[in-house]
Amino acid sequence: MQNVYLSNYELSEAIDIYFKKLGKLNCKTEVVNTWDANGRVTVNALFSLISSPHYNSSAMDGIAVKSEKTFKASDRNHIVLQENVDYVVVDTGDPILKEFDAVIMVEDLIKVDDNHAEIYAAAVPWQNIRPLGEDIVENQLIIPSNHKIRPVDIGALIAGGVNKIEVYKKPSVGIIPTGTELVEIGTDLKVGDIIDFNTRTFAAQVSDWGAVPNRYNIVKDDYELIKAAVIKAAEENDIVLINAGSSAGREDFTSSVISEVGELIIHGVAIKPGKPVMMGIVKNKPIIGIPGYPVSAYFVMEEIAQKLILGFQGLNETKNSTVNAVLTKRVMSSLKYHEFVRVKLGYVDGKYIATPLTRGAGATMSLVRADGVLEIEQSIEGIEAGNLVEVKLLNTEDNIKNTLVCIGSHDPIIDIASDIMHKNNNKYFLSSANVGSMGGIMSLKTGETHIAPIHLLDMETGEYNKSYVNKYLSNKKIALIKCVNRIQGFIVAKDNPLNITKFEDLTREDIKFVNRQRGSGTRLLLDYNLNKLNIEPEKISGYFREEFTHLSVAAAVLAGDCEVGLGVYSAAVMMGLDFIPVCNEEYDIALQEEYLELDIVKQFLNTIKSNEFKIELEKLGGYDCSNAGEIVYL
Amino acid sequence: MQNVYLSNYELSEAIDIYFKKLGKLNCKTEVVNTWDANGRVTVNALFSLISSPHYNSSAMDGIAVKSEKTFKASDRNHIVLQENVDYVVVDTGDPILKEFDAVIMVEDLIKVDDNHAEIYAAAVPWQNIRPLGEDIVENQLIIPSNHKIRPVDIGALIAGGVNKIEVYKKPSVGIIPTGTELVEIGTDLKVGDIIDFNTRTFAAQVSDWGAVPNRYNIVKDDYELIKAAVIKAAEENDIVLINAGSSAGREDFTSSVISEVGELIIHGVAIKPGKPVMMGIVKNKPIIGIPGYPVSAYFVMEEIAQKLILGFQGLNETKNSTVNAVLTKRVMSSLKYHEFVRVKLGYVDGKYIATPLTRGAGATMSLVRADGVLEIEQSIEGIEAGNLVEVKLLNTEDNIKNTLVCIGSHDPIIDIASDIMHKNNNKYFLSSANVGSMGGIMSLKTGETHIAPIHLLDMETGEYNKSYVNKYLSNKKIALIKCVNRIQGFIVAKDNPLNITKFEDLTREDIKFVNRQRGSGTRLLLDYNLNKLNIEPEKISGYFREEFTHLSVAAAVLAGDCEVGLGVYSAAVMMGLDFIPVCNEEYDIALQEEYLELDIVKQFLNTIKSNEFKIELEKLGGYDCSNAGEIVYL
Repeated sequence: MQNVYLSNYELSEAIDIYFKKLGKLNCKTEVVNTWDANGRVTVNALFSLISSPHYNSSAMDGIAVKSEKTFKASDRNHIVLQENVDYVVVDTGDPILKEFDAVIMVEDLIKVDDNHAEIYAAAVPWQNIRPLGEDIVENQLIIPSNHKIRPVDIGALIAGGVNKIEVYKKPSVGIIPTGTELVEIGTDLKVGDIIDFNTRTFAAQVSDWGAVPNRYNIVKDDYELIKAAVIKAAEENDIVLINAGSSAGREDFTSSVISEVGELIIHGVAIKPGKPVMMGIVKNKPIIGIPGYPVSAYFVMEEIAQKLILGFQGLNETKNSTVNAVLTKRVMSSLKYHEFVRVKLGYVDGKYIATPLTRGAGATMSLVRADGVLEIEQSIEGIEAGNLVEVKLLNTEDNIKNTLVCIGSHDPIIDIASDIMHKNNNKYFLSSANVGSMGGIMSLKTGETHIAPIHLLDMETGEYNKSYVNKYLSNKKIALIKCVNRIQGFIVAKDNPLNITKFEDLTREDIKFVNRQRGSGTRLLLDYNLNKLNIEPEKISGYFREEFTHLSVAAAVLAGDCEVGLGVYSAAVMMGLDFIPVCNEEYDIALQEEYLELDIVKQFLNTIKSNEFKIELEKLGGYDCSNAGEIVYL
Repeated sequence: MQNVYLSNYELSEAIDIYFKKLGKLNCKTEVVNTWDANGRVTVNALFSLISSPHYNSSAMDGIAVKSEKTFKASDRNHIVLQENVDYVVVDTGDPILKEFDAVIMVEDLIKVDDNHAEIYAAAVPWQNIRPLGEDIVENQLIIPSNHKIRPVDIGALIAGGVNKIEVYKKPSVGIIPTGTELVEIGTDLKVGDIIDFNTRTFAAQVSDWGAVPNRYNIVKDDYELIKAAVIKAAEENDIVLINAGSSAGREDFTSSVISEVGELIIHGVAIKPGKPVMMGIVKNKPIIGIPGYPVSAYFVMEEIAQKLILGFQGLNETKNSTVNAVLTKRVMSSLKYHEFVRVKLGYVDGKYIATPLTRGAGATMSLVRADGVLEIEQSIEGIEAGNLVEVKLLNTEDNIKNTLVCIGSHDPIIDIASDIMHKNNNKYFLSSANVGSMGGIMSLKTGETHIAPIHLLDMETGEYNKSYVNKYLSNKKIALIKCVNRIQGFIVAKDNPLNITKFEDLTREDIKFVNRQRGSGTRLLLDYNLNKLNIEPEKISGYFREEFTHLSVAAAVLAGDCEVGLGVYSAAVMMGLDFIPVCNEEYDIALQEEYLELDIVKQFLNTIKSNEFKIELEKLGGYDCSNAGEIVYL
């Protein structure tokens, strides 16, 4: 239990210390053909070697003339010119012979015969002529040094006669995955195995930043093996990234290895996630120790490794653009760290809305789902809901503005509708957050969402959804889009070995239950039934264990942590479990009536009314969508 | 002189007609390894095949315990637990054995001996455990269809057991350069030759849009050769681009070829530049005829070809972000076209400033220099200076905000200072517009520029710069940064064959002059001298021919269009011409005094005071920079 205490430098301070220590980066250069240089970075400013055009040329299709011979031409005094005496025919780009000094364009000519043309206006000297060097003059600066070459630069460089250019060599980045628990992709997984996916993400990031990734095989947690791997990677690459082994666990040898074979400059930075990052130098090569948790790794890659990789190519990071968004949930933050909070962005009613995603460092999916990052300064303890915050964009504003925001109850059919809609109209996206039916109602109330899927059973009337809308959203004009009737029931192990068939069984001693979170319609359904049957929740083992989706409930049953959960048929089927139906419920989509006019909502309506959608639901089973798309005004 | 009249569809209408005619694009797909799929586009929605984690695992380094055995632990009642009986040691990611249901982290343990640990707080069931599927549940949607894969997606897909995925195949794009005047890169240029650089730009654009460019050799203007090339390219590729031959010149066979071997759907769209574009179908493959002028070609590529190339990969165009900017010059526009105007953007005094660049369709450099595009609707005749306009960004806001705007008189040393400054501090850029000294003064007046290089000779006092600042900028606090004293003189052919030595020579019958534009300091210098010598400008042949830079003047002399121009020594040397000194002048940099406080201005000051700058100027010759960086407050 070594190395528990790390340093806690501010990120910018740590980077300063590290880059000062690194000194001038050992950037290499190479000469490439200009036409192969797209995306590469210039070492020196590039000046044209020739002018373009390199001769006086015609800017139009027409005839080249001596302007003084046209001076008397006018509407009332047409002049007839003779070919090869008074003019020659020229096309755009043709050279202008010495004796001519203007071009009259074809549209301004009256054809007399094959060798004569009539004009009715004088030509001004140099009209319609592109003089030598009009576009690029010899020795003119075309692009500066440290400039990332774009397609238009390639055109201009070649036009300016620059056919070979010196660019920064793409740095080679060695990537070492370490950890005895890691296995390669495609391995049959045993309990305790973790597929190494982090270094695959790194490799793609490294490529995106213009470098060449060089991933090594997984190294077990063995001091000597790690040492050998670090030395080899430092010898073979410009930069080394070593994954895992940077927190304080039993098997963390990385920091000791770096200290032994090189110098460990920084170990620990006041960022979260990402705190246990290491920055060192081995054999004069920079080496970054990247934490094992995927989200920590991501921010260390973005905030530190990127800077290094771009630096080797003479480039600075380009800052992401930002938008101001209304925060939907309070975010707490520690005074010990500068925090990076991933957020989902929506554009509802003319403003951006930012909803924080799961903050766990292991939440790979939160990176996939994030549209932006909210940074919370170390000195700030938290930000209240409703505040306007600056969010760094990970998605385009355009995509976000074309996204239907869907916050509420979870059902796998929302993913299906999302996919069908996007496939039929590429422009539109659907983003869903699973916060339960009551969460959906609250999101409608605060205006954070376009649509809210809900299935809320009125404990008194036994009716679905309407009474909740009337109670909580009385000041808005709300409509319900009918979506599906779905079967809820007990999700149990294959063949239902414990013979669970009714709510009363949940109190049995041999049975552990897994519940859904408070505010979810499924939880209300449970409570409604327990109440009807006078069963006390405390009697049910596992009543207080909460999962957030049907699939998570099914996963818990599959894992054997518990014997039963309440959920939808499709979730049980997907996990190969058995299902005991309990009741049918109405899963509807609530929204502000005026949003029915939005094109994106119309597309969504078309989607759930479509045959495609029906066919997919039949495959899943457990849904009746005969009323899908019907609108109920409340 | 055929095909003069083209159609004039609106762009969106033309695209609609064309894409309807094309019908469903013949997108091909292929299966790739997930780790090789960065930047590729999914064909189907991808769902996880396994859960991640796929077992209950520890979220912390610590010990796994049975929570019920810890319930009585408190500050006042420490409990000692025994290894392998009450707990096992676990690291982050280790599996939790069936008999345990909580993890206590190492920081909350008091070590007793090697086999015992003391705790002082109860463990809550499931604390610090990542349950199976916490991150990704089996069958969960990871990414939708038609989604461009990012590094984080690769991580999540592999974590979810998705190792191979179906993606759209990169479309192959055949690119045919046509034109008898075209020559390949590296050819010794004869008059009338044009290097084919357009198709090299296309190839890079095509790559940037995710497709594979397939450039063919140049095809001469010969109907049968072009026909053969089009057929071959249509057979070998998914999309064909054919360059040049789309305007109405003598040698334009493309439209006839497309009509003969396929179908020409559109010929002519109401955009400028880019009007004569063609859209056709040959052998069921889309073919775009792209105009020969580089700027026309660029917009046709961006607005039409891009849509097609992305469409073949299931993608929509992503719109560039925009900023609102103050237009510095009036822009006129034809009611016949929707116009694309390239603009240079600056960020001065808290607002974006857009300066239109040269509008010629041949101005390759205007594409290189552009930071954005201003689109002018067909129904609008023009936009007045001072109006706020929406500009589509071609550069990042960050880069633009870190750019020192320099509008005024042209001298090659500005390019040199720009390059040195950027090289020493990657973050900063300098963008210069050459509008002459008086243009610089006016830009300071309207607040469009940070700095303005000027060399304005007072006709009465013979003094430089100060009187102009006092006269035109009396309501601002202006400072002058001394820059260089430079030699102006006559730029003449090598060995000065016509023996030009004094202003009086300019009126000689055998001599044609080339002038600088009105408002330039060099023009004022000429007028000052002519005035002193009582020479009438009209007596000078070529007095009214205007060029915008010293290098353009030198280029005109080199081309032999004229025998002499007035300019700086360095321009003559660069072009291998001779130089007859006339006088020394003070080339200073005017700016608002408060801008001296800007970090970017300080960097610029450091640059012109640096040894590096002095060394470069010595190489050029003709400059004295002993006072460079001195500040004169006015």
